[in-house]
Amino acid sequence: MVSLRHEFMFLGNIVMHQQSPSYAITVRLRYHDSPGLLGKITTAIGSAHGFIGAVDIVGVTEGQITRDITVNCSTVDHGQQIVTEIAKIDGITIMHVSDRVFLMHLGGKIEVNSKTPLKTRDDLSMAYTPGVARVCQSIHQDPDSSFALTIRKNMVAVVSDGSAVLGLGNIGPEAAMPVMEGKAMLFKEFAGVDAFPIVLATQDTEEIIQTVKRIAPTFGGINLEDISAPRCIEIEERLEQELEIPVFHDDQHGTAIVVLAALKNALHCVKKSIEDVKILINGPGAAGTAITRLLLDAGAKKIVVCDRDGALGHHCTDLSGEPAKQWIVANTNQGNEAGELSQVIQDKDVFIGVSAADVLKAEDVASMAADPIVFALANPNPEINPAIAAPHVRIIGTGRSDYPNQINNVLCFPGLFRGVLDVRAREINGAMKLAAADAIASVIEPENLTDDYVVPSVFDRRVAPEVARAVAQTAIETGVARKKSTTQYQVV
Amino acid sequence: MVSLRHEFMFLGNIVMHQQSPSYAITVRLRYHDSPGLLGKITTAIGSAHGFIGAVDIVGVTEGQITRDITVNCSTVDHGQQIVTEIAKIDGITIMHVSDRVFLMHLGGKIEVNSKTPLKTRDDLSMAYTPGVARVCQSIHQDPDSSFALTIRKNMVAVVSDGSAVLGLGNIGPEAAMPVMEGKAMLFKEFAGVDAFPIVLATQDTEEIIQTVKRIAPTFGGINLEDISAPRCIEIEERLEQELEIPVFHDDQHGTAIVVLAALKNALHCVKKSIEDVKILINGPGAAGTAITRLLLDAGAKKIVVCDRDGALGHHCTDLSGEPAKQWIVANTNQGNEAGELSQVIQDKDVFIGVSAADVLKAEDVASMAADPIVFALANPNPEINPAIAAPHVRIIGTGRSDYPNQINNVLCFPGLFRGVLDVRAREINGAMKLAAADAIASVIEPENLTDDYVVPSVFDRRVAPEVARAVAQTAIETGVARKKSTTQYQVV
Repeated sequence: MVSLRHEFMFLGNIVMHQQSPSYAITVRLRYHDSPGLLGKITTAIGSAHGFIGAVDIVGVTEGQITRDITVNCSTVDHGQQIVTEIAKIDGITIMHVSDRVFLMHLGGKIEVNSKTPLKTRDDLSMAYTPGVARVCQSIHQDPDSSFALTIRKNMVAVVSDGSAVLGLGNIGPEAAMPVMEGKAMLFKEFAGVDAFPIVLATQDTEEIIQTVKRIAPTFGGINLEDISAPRCIEIEERLEQELEIPVFHDDQHGTAIVVLAALKNALHCVKKSIEDVKILINGPGAAGTAITRLLLDAGAKKIVVCDRDGALGHHCTDLSGEPAKQWIVANTNQGNEAGELSQVIQDKDVFIGVSAADVLKAEDVASMAADPIVFALANPNPEINPAIAAPHVRIIGTGRSDYPNQINNVLCFPGLFRGVLDVRAREINGAMKLAAADAIASVIEPENLTDDYVVPSVFDRRVAPEVARAVAQTAIETGVARKKSTTQYQVV
Repeated sequence: MVSLRHEFMFLGNIVMHQQSPSYAITVRLRYHDSPGLLGKITTAIGSAHGFIGAVDIVGVTEGQITRDITVNCSTVDHGQQIVTEIAKIDGITIMHVSDRVFLMHLGGKIEVNSKTPLKTRDDLSMAYTPGVARVCQSIHQDPDSSFALTIRKNMVAVVSDGSAVLGLGNIGPEAAMPVMEGKAMLFKEFAGVDAFPIVLATQDTEEIIQTVKRIAPTFGGINLEDISAPRCIEIEERLEQELEIPVFHDDQHGTAIVVLAALKNALHCVKKSIEDVKILINGPGAAGTAITRLLLDAGAKKIVVCDRDGALGHHCTDLSGEPAKQWIVANTNQGNEAGELSQVIQDKDVFIGVSAADVLKAEDVASMAADPIVFALANPNPEINPAIAAPHVRIIGTGRSDYPNQINNVLCFPGLFRGVLDVRAREINGAMKLAAADAIASVIEPENLTDDYVVPSVFDRRVAPEVARAVAQTAIETGVARKKSTTQYQVV
């Protein structure tokens, strides 16, 4: 554990110069082959802090050699600097510089394929006319059989209006698409769920609701994504009420589920119980509200939520037009605490931030109760730099992959939808969310839990099947599954 | 040619008892293995007119053999009869009968896959956060780059409200889905186009238009499918005007393009010109109107369109509220012919039916001009049984695969969308439709044309690339392409 902590602080120090494949370039250059020239090139790249990946030969003609050199950089500007340094070497011609991330995105990242071949007239007469007509008639007689006989058995829509994409803000539907495609890839990779991105040319609440309702017969579930608050809350609530397929706003509930999973394991490490701990949630937005609700469902009793002005409580007089904050006041802060974040955080056991970068100072976390747990989830930069927090906290988690305890929604949504599709659930209720959190937490055996390992790796292949199993079984038990039992998910 | 004609009449005779893979069953049966028993089974199936396909051994235990026998039947009832006949054999236990068409549809026929692997953190950091953010920002700055950097480069929506599906009528969105999935398979198989089916929980014209407009940033083109007339016409026209991506109602224009292709080749066979021939189009619906319009664009001068009551012309007094028929009256029937179909057809060179089964009699086609051309496209049963028409016509085409000259939209839509996506066309204009028809027709070299081969096979792999090339080039030439030229489609 000591060594892990050490490594972790080291990561904190080098983060400013970290080369990443998300800033990888491939430089195509040509030169008269002569001894030592490749060495000069690689030295130039290394001196400019580029991380060299593959070095390929494209071709050799008339003594001229053409090479592709792939270099991980830390920013776009850094890539430019590296190219400039290479160009300074005598005898080198830069043919072309390509950005590997953009290359990967050319033409999109997902495709639609047939599951059966379509090579002969017989294939055609079964998959299309005339054979398909019998299947159509069968579904016409029993529309619910569409959950067995069409793509909706395994198909989720990933719907966004592009209004709150990553940390980029309101960039619109076209620009949101690469994220939604990535999400679809994650669905397939981690849980075999087919997901199709739908980006919308409207940001009007009512129009989004109507549009999703109208395309709903295509899908077995709806994953809402990157829709800004407070619209996302109303959109999800209305669609949940008005559709007979599960609707899930991942930014709210996916985050809440993974936070609860991490918190359960973290509390096990520090030997505290969720009923007893004093929890501060900073950021009363959609995610903060969903986290609050789920922690209450899980038994938490002592939650205080802060907004920019400090603790929310009965002393807040003007919350008209802010139903989410009204709900928070009615359901949290029993002790009616008041004051700014730096006052309220004193003596808290748990800090959960879904707010903004750097709102937390070292002295704030130093003022927490013994063995403090800090989940600083602001993206891409957390509420406090983990390297700064480290000396003062027992357990820290962030949304980033370059620190321990990455609290990442991908631990939840693929398995969750796998489970609901498997039993054709009509909705995702609170019990299913709690079951998903338990399943994620349980993947790490209690004896293997450490302060730096309270949440499984996003690449832990045990997570999605566990979540799917738990969610499916809970759907059956709580009566929201169309399939009352399956061999796999039989209720004993 | 004589032999083809012979085969064709033979086909006409056996159509009543035709076994088809679209009515295939797999019978799983078990029996004590003894000499001659398999012979009895196959004899029973043969006597009941079943066509035996694969005969597999599932397993042998304790002298009992379990077999799967696949049998093509002609109807569902026919399948039942065959099973009943097998069950009569002493010692046979029928374990299970499965319908192969339904088996093929379980879970849907298409899936969504990643084009690149997502196995490591590096993959994730390029396809998803943080790398994806740069691509999003780039599209935010130039939304048109979504045609290069997202799925819309190669993605078409296949949109239906389920109001006019095949010959099944208004069966609703869920029941329409298997057809739309089949269509998506055809797009991929024949032209490498990704197509995703969207079925809509509304049949309101304005709601369909709004819904398609709102999901449009997802796609590079919209293929409308199986939407009933007259709504389909308004929906297409409005979407064409209001969207900056191509919108194509296949049931209208796909049919028209393939009809024109077939007509061009048929006229070549009978040595007549499109300007001179007298054409009767029966059925002034959406397809009939689109055919009329395209034939006029192609140079036809003498068209009369009939509805149920006979020829449409200036004598038709009450066409208020029927803009399509008003347009027909204004643009066809210069000679102001009147009367029922059986009168109007006299002396016509060409009959094109997009109406209903069996509206045409042998004497009607016998009354046509010399070397008559009859395209009887009603589905699934044509305006006249080709076996009945054969003695009286020179060239006949239908929508069916079991007669020669199958006029099938699959000859058009995959290549057409391939072409528009390749040059990022904003619309599909009349010139592009004419170019598509020419391309389809040109696939058969003039010296290979025969009366039974005026339209290429749906499995002719030359068709889609030819159509794509012609459509793309015409899009560039007529100024509707975002890509002004490509290596492949350069305008010389």
